[in-house]
Amino acid sequence: MRAHVTKKILSEGLGLLERVIPSRSSNPLLTALKVEASEAGLTLSGTNLEIDLSCFVPAEVQEPQSFVVPAHLLAQIVKSLGGELVELELTGNELAVRAGGSDFKLQTGDLEAYPPLSFPSHADVSLDAAELARALGSVRYAASNEAFQAVFRGIKLEHRADFARVVASDGYRVAIRDFPASGDGRNLIVPARSADELIRVLREGEARFTYGEGTLSVTTERVRMNLKLLEGDFPDYERVIPKEIKLQVTLPATALKEAVNRVAVLADKNANNRVEFMVSGGKLLLAAEGDYGRAQDTLDVVQGGSEPAISLAFNARHVLDALSPIEGDAELLFSGSTSPAIFRASGGGGYMAVMVTLRV
Amino acid sequence: MRAHVTKKILSEGLGLLERVIPSRSSNPLLTALKVEASEAGLTLSGTNLEIDLSCFVPAEVQEPQSFVVPAHLLAQIVKSLGGELVELELTGNELAVRAGGSDFKLQTGDLEAYPPLSFPSHADVSLDAAELARALGSVRYAASNEAFQAVFRGIKLEHRADFARVVASDGYRVAIRDFPASGDGRNLIVPARSADELIRVLREGEARFTYGEGTLSVTTERVRMNLKLLEGDFPDYERVIPKEIKLQVTLPATALKEAVNRVAVLADKNANNRVEFMVSGGKLLLAAEGDYGRAQDTLDVVQGGSEPAISLAFNARHVLDALSPIEGDAELLFSGSTSPAIFRASGGGGYMAVMVTLRV
Repeated sequence: MRAHVTKKILSEGLGLLERVIPSRSSNPLLTALKVEASEAGLTLSGTNLEIDLSCFVPAEVQEPQSFVVPAHLLAQIVKSLGGELVELELTGNELAVRAGGSDFKLQTGDLEAYPPLSFPSHADVSLDAAELARALGSVRYAASNEAFQAVFRGIKLEHRADFARVVASDGYRVAIRDFPASGDGRNLIVPARSADELIRVLREGEARFTYGEGTLSVTTERVRMNLKLLEGDFPDYERVIPKEIKLQVTLPATALKEAVNRVAVLADKNANNRVEFMVSGGKLLLAAEGDYGRAQDTLDVVQGGSEPAISLAFNARHVLDALSPIEGDAELLFSGSTSPAIFRASGGGGYMAVMVTLRV
Repeated sequence: MRAHVTKKILSEGLGLLERVIPSRSSNPLLTALKVEASEAGLTLSGTNLEIDLSCFVPAEVQEPQSFVVPAHLLAQIVKSLGGELVELELTGNELAVRAGGSDFKLQTGDLEAYPPLSFPSHADVSLDAAELARALGSVRYAASNEAFQAVFRGIKLEHRADFARVVASDGYRVAIRDFPASGDGRNLIVPARSADELIRVLREGEARFTYGEGTLSVTTERVRMNLKLLEGDFPDYERVIPKEIKLQVTLPATALKEAVNRVAVLADKNANNRVEFMVSGGKLLLAAEGDYGRAQDTLDVVQGGSEPAISLAFNARHVLDALSPIEGDAELLFSGSTSPAIFRASGGGGYMAVMVTLRV
C-alpha cells in the first residue's frame, strides 16, 4: 500500500482519534489505530471500549491494504513533519511515513487481533449537528464527574413534539437547552465524557442517529461514533423549575461574571464559595466574606416583578457555570429567598439554568 | 492612609512580588506583602528567605502609613478589578480596595512582627540590566534543578578584563554567555532559581550590584533584590571546551530544532533520547531508534574542517536546550566522535554550549 495525503487533513483526523484511543492500556491493542485504505482514502478508527470512533481521510491510495499502528506515535510524527504532503507506504510489517527530508519506519501491529469495530449503515433519526453540539456544550457543566448515581454523570436527550432538549444535573442544579428538531427519536442518557467527544467531532451538516441495544451510533459526513448509553431514571427535573417569579433582573452577562469572579476572591472555599445577591431599587449588590476580609460589588440592573427586593445566596462557582453559555444580557428570575432561581439569556435561545440557593 | 494608583502599574508590581512571596508557609507572616507608603508612592516588599524583593509603585498618597496584607489575595483582587484607577484606604486594621462599583475590605496583619528587610543604598559595580538578563536566560537551562552538588544548581558570574561571563553546568553540558561589562566585580554563584526571578525583574537600564556576606543585592530603577549566593568551587569548565575542531557545519537553527524534535519522537526515552548525528558530503543525517521503529531526517549543511565525515550521538533534549538561545544560523563544531562538541550562533554573540557525546 502506498498513500499520499495532505498533512493538515491527516493530522486533524489523527487528532480526533488521539482523544479517544488511550495512550496506555493494560491491553496494548487498544492503544493502536486501525487504518483501512480504499482507493478514495483512509478510514482511521479506534476505541476505548466506551466509544468507538472512525474518521475518513481522503487520500490518493495505490494497492489498498489495512494495518494497525501505535496511534499516539503516528499522530505525534505527523504533527512534527514539515511540508504539506505526507507519503505512507506499507512494506511487510513496517509503515514508512515520509515528508521532505524525513523518513520514519513504524512497526505495525497484529491486524487480526484488533477488536472488530462495526458502525451501522442505516439512520433512525437526524439532528442538526451544530445545534446538537451547541446544546450539549451549554449544559455539560451541570453533569457531575464523580456523582455516585450514574444518571448525574450523564446528559439526557429528549425528543419532544417539535424540538429536542438536552438536560444535565448534578442534583444541585439543572441546565437545559432546547433546540429545533423533528422526527421521532428516543429519550436517552449519554455519558457526559462521551458527550465531550461528541461535541468535538460534530461540525455542520447532519448528525444521523442509529439506536442499538444500550448504545447510540452517531454518523456525520466525516466521522462515525458508537457510544454506550447510561441506564437508569433521570430525575424529574421539571419539578424544580420555579413557576412563579417574584422578582427579575436583567443585566449584561459579562459584567455579572466579572463581578462574581471579583467578590469570589474573598468567598469562603469551605462554605460553598458563598456569594450573596441582594436586589433592590434597580441595583444588584454582590457580597462575599471569608477569613481575610469581605468584598462587595454593585451593579445596575433593570428590575421587574411584584416584589420590591430580595436577598439570597449562591455558590459563586455555580453562578459562573450557569452564566457561561449566556452572551449579551442575562435574566435572573427569582421565586423566593429559599427556592430555586432561573438564569437564562435575555431574549430566549432555549437555554435555562435552574439553581438552588444556599441556606441563609 | 489613602492612595490612588493606576491598576496596571500596581498589578505589575504585585505580579513580581507574587512570584517571590510564598502562597502558603508554615510561617504565615511570610505570605504577607509589606506596603510602605510615602508621598511619592508605595514600596511593596516581600521575601521567601532566599530572595528579598522590593518594588516601587508611583501613587498619589495622603497621610502615608505602612501595613502588611495577604500578598496573593491582594494581587488577585487588583487583577480582577474593573477600571483604571484603584483607591486604597487604611482604616485601623482594615485596608479598603476600591474601584468602580467594587469595595473590598482586607484585614491587615501585624506590621511589627514582619521580618525587617533592608536593602543597601550604595553600589559596588554596575552591569547593563538587559544584557545580564539575556545572558542568564541563555545559560539557565544547563543548571540542574536536582543535582546533589550545590554549584550545579547555580549560575556562575565571572568578571573578566573587559567583559562578564555567565556559566552554568549540570556536569554533562556547559552553557556560557559573554557580554560587555566593565568595572571590578567579584566572581560569584547565583542559585538558578534566584536567577529566574532576577531575569524576570531586570529590564532596561542599570543593574547595580552590592556585595554582602554570602549575599548579592541587585538594584534597578524599579526594584531592589537581595539574594543568597551559593558557596563552593565551580568546576573547571574551560578544561572541557575542545580546542581542536576537526569538522564543522552551519545550518539554520530552526530547521535543526524541528528535525531533532521530529526524530526524537521515536528515540528511546530509557537511553538518553539518543539521536545520532552523521555528517558527510554537505549533509547532516539525524537518526533515532526505539521500541516502535526508527526515524531519520536529512538536512543540507555548509560543511568545513579537515575531516570529511563524522558520526556521533547526543541526548535530543540536550541538543534542543543548547539550540534554544540561538536564532538564525547555528554552528556545530566537532572535535571527534567521543569528545565534546560546541554549538554556537553563527557570527558570534557570545553564546556557546559545550556538550558531551553519548557513547557509541
